[in-house]
Amino acid sequence: MKIEMICTGEEVLSGQIVDTNAAWVANTLMESGYELSRKTTVGDRLDDLVGAFTESAARADLVIVNGGLGPTSDDMSAEAAAQALGEPLVMFDQWRTVMEQMFAARGRTMTSSNLKQAMLPASAVVVDNPVGTACGFRVKLGGAWLFFTPGVPHELFRMVKEQLLPFLIDQDPLNGGTVKVHKLLTLGQAESAMANEIDDIPMSCPEGVTIGYRASMPHIEVKLFHRARVDEAQWQAYLAEVKSALGDSLVGENQKSMGEIVHSLLVERGETLALAESCTGGMVADQLVTLAGSSAYLLGSLVTYSNSAKQSQCGVKAETLEQFGAVSLETVAEMAQGARRALGSDVGVSISGIAGPDGGTEEKPVGTVCFCVCSDRGHWSQTLAFGSGANRSRTLVRKLSAAVALDMLRRLLLGLDPIADYPFLKRVDARRL
Amino acid sequence: MKIEMICTGEEVLSGQIVDTNAAWVANTLMESGYELSRKTTVGDRLDDLVGAFTESAARADLVIVNGGLGPTSDDMSAEAAAQALGEPLVMFDQWRTVMEQMFAARGRTMTSSNLKQAMLPASAVVVDNPVGTACGFRVKLGGAWLFFTPGVPHELFRMVKEQLLPFLIDQDPLNGGTVKVHKLLTLGQAESAMANEIDDIPMSCPEGVTIGYRASMPHIEVKLFHRARVDEAQWQAYLAEVKSALGDSLVGENQKSMGEIVHSLLVERGETLALAESCTGGMVADQLVTLAGSSAYLLGSLVTYSNSAKQSQCGVKAETLEQFGAVSLETVAEMAQGARRALGSDVGVSISGIAGPDGGTEEKPVGTVCFCVCSDRGHWSQTLAFGSGANRSRTLVRKLSAAVALDMLRRLLLGLDPIADYPFLKRVDARRL
Repeated sequence: MKIEMICTGEEVLSGQIVDTNAAWVANTLMESGYELSRKTTVGDRLDDLVGAFTESAARADLVIVNGGLGPTSDDMSAEAAAQALGEPLVMFDQWRTVMEQMFAARGRTMTSSNLKQAMLPASAVVVDNPVGTACGFRVKLGGAWLFFTPGVPHELFRMVKEQLLPFLIDQDPLNGGTVKVHKLLTLGQAESAMANEIDDIPMSCPEGVTIGYRASMPHIEVKLFHRARVDEAQWQAYLAEVKSALGDSLVGENQKSMGEIVHSLLVERGETLALAESCTGGMVADQLVTLAGSSAYLLGSLVTYSNSAKQSQCGVKAETLEQFGAVSLETVAEMAQGARRALGSDVGVSISGIAGPDGGTEEKPVGTVCFCVCSDRGHWSQTLAFGSGANRSRTLVRKLSAAVALDMLRRLLLGLDPIADYPFLKRVDARRL
Repeated sequence: MKIEMICTGEEVLSGQIVDTNAAWVANTLMESGYELSRKTTVGDRLDDLVGAFTESAARADLVIVNGGLGPTSDDMSAEAAAQALGEPLVMFDQWRTVMEQMFAARGRTMTSSNLKQAMLPASAVVVDNPVGTACGFRVKLGGAWLFFTPGVPHELFRMVKEQLLPFLIDQDPLNGGTVKVHKLLTLGQAESAMANEIDDIPMSCPEGVTIGYRASMPHIEVKLFHRARVDEAQWQAYLAEVKSALGDSLVGENQKSMGEIVHSLLVERGETLALAESCTGGMVADQLVTLAGSSAYLLGSLVTYSNSAKQSQCGVKAETLEQFGAVSLETVAEMAQGARRALGSDVGVSISGIAGPDGGTEEKPVGTVCFCVCSDRGHWSQTLAFGSGANRSRTLVRKLSAAVALDMLRRLLLGLDPIADYPFLKRVDARRL
């Protein structure tokens, strides 16, 4: 079954909004074994929409259309569908009633612009949207189903799960399960070097498995796609080889983020955490607090962005700041220990660095970041030089810093040496006490 | 001039990576007055790439191709271009030398897989990439230029600015400047209600101006596109009407984020800031620290996620927590004042709420969030109920909380009442002292 997706909206096409809906749909389909063969994005112009619908319908069996079902004048998916079909738009009283009830339940009055949302092509089959006023629908154009979904993410997500996927499985039950993906999350290695290491594995890649690399800074994800049934023993042996080739760069397996990895470990082990953040500025705490249940272990983070805050909140000594500077192994050690003491946690983690674009010196250029993790088991600190220049923006330095800090914590929790060898990140100094 | 974009890569098509490159390119083109008419995304399959190149070239004058120029086996843009052209791939010694010098300068040896990056279609014109090994190039297919750019963001960005835009302006100098966009950032109003308010403005929209709405939670952006030359006086009058219709919901004009808005105000006014964050968990600090120069005003943020941290770091009284709870006007007042005192700042801002999915009670359901801003001018606190359910995820509650906190700060700095009337956000309680 050939599936395409069409995303509509001037704001998606013009780059004012990043198309996370399409990524989510593709991801969700893939988890059920369906692949998109193409995605097209067009703006809110009737001719372009009609053209895209007609062209995709000629190529594919199912075309998922996203967006353009709202109440405003730039929402014209239903009108374009009607035109592509050569049909009139008609009022679907069934949906009008649903909308009226929805507004009544919220104690609001329905605006006249909402009425438009019940006007669908005459041959449309209504697809329920239990959480919004945008009515989903599907129509058959030539040999293809066009399946229209709302642009509001949580409405789309629900419609895909409850309506589109069951429809898809019903249309093409055999396709399910042929595509799977196994993901290895890496940190601190370059894509080309990684590809060479993996290419050099003596064992060849099992038939039906293909490898992809995706850079999502600060990580590169190695993705092993199964496009056919793969021999299990051969697959396991190959996977083990790939993982060993990645060495310390491998930080997670089928996990989305450093935050999730550390979150599950901390919850599992029942250890509590205190953070002291300078250049990451709350980013590490945010990556944990975003996960429900983080209150079980995260006592707090002292975002001590100024020197005075480092002193007053973490108890960093004035002499330490004066003698070694805010970005030094000595300062991060006092920050981590201070945060741990102030908040009474099992583990303390600290970060202090020069994110740029200014603030660098010859001795400590932009991109120099110090880290410390400490617990009753000891304390480990290191200085990494992430470098500066076009490919080392302030944001990237900060994201790398958050990732390394969380990876040091991960390694501590797993009983590994918290100071890892990342082939592509330069270590300037390290201390183990 | 008709411009299309083709994004390549299994990881983009399969949704493993969100396509921020395309958004950036579209945005950058629009700022120079050029619009994309279509964007197509295809995976790493040779036939699909050849098909997409051929189809876009038949429709457009310029096709920007992104990605697939890397050293690994899934990078096949050059090969597909050669096939679409009916030409062989040949080694471009010019680029091979550039790569060798690049590796030498970094003290690394060039891997054999990099050699592939110098193999281009015979008729290709090399486009320089000063920051990476992926060689850009352009070829003429039928009547259209195909312009190939690297997938690594900072390499792409530089190539677009230094090579693609000048090329485009050279090809079509008259097109520049016809599309402009004026953006109004809003908070706390629904899209349909906003559209109705704007539709109800007695003055009609000037010819050549179109309106778009983009939901990028927690904000909705109202975008006024100029697609032709517009009468300036008429435009200014209309803009004033739209802004007045938005009321307190209007939080920024041609500014990207609450962080940027507050950042410029604080830098301009020279006031210092201390934060105390609970449910936002460092998100507010992170939104400021991401901006270079934030150290001028941000002293720190006390991410006091646990009750004990609220006491030890912000000096919240045990009795206050016991009597009113962590999510109360009393607690946020002590948090804001405590952070301000502990860090010695001009302004203090605090947030404490129930982000969910658990932790709600009948009296304080999930989505209940308390805020306080304080300075020598006084102190203002309020409780908002963001609601729960499908459209109020933990992430959304936290993003709304960060946005409201920053908006209270913005209003304080501008001398407005920090407690605003957002039509779509329910206020439970407020206190002005």
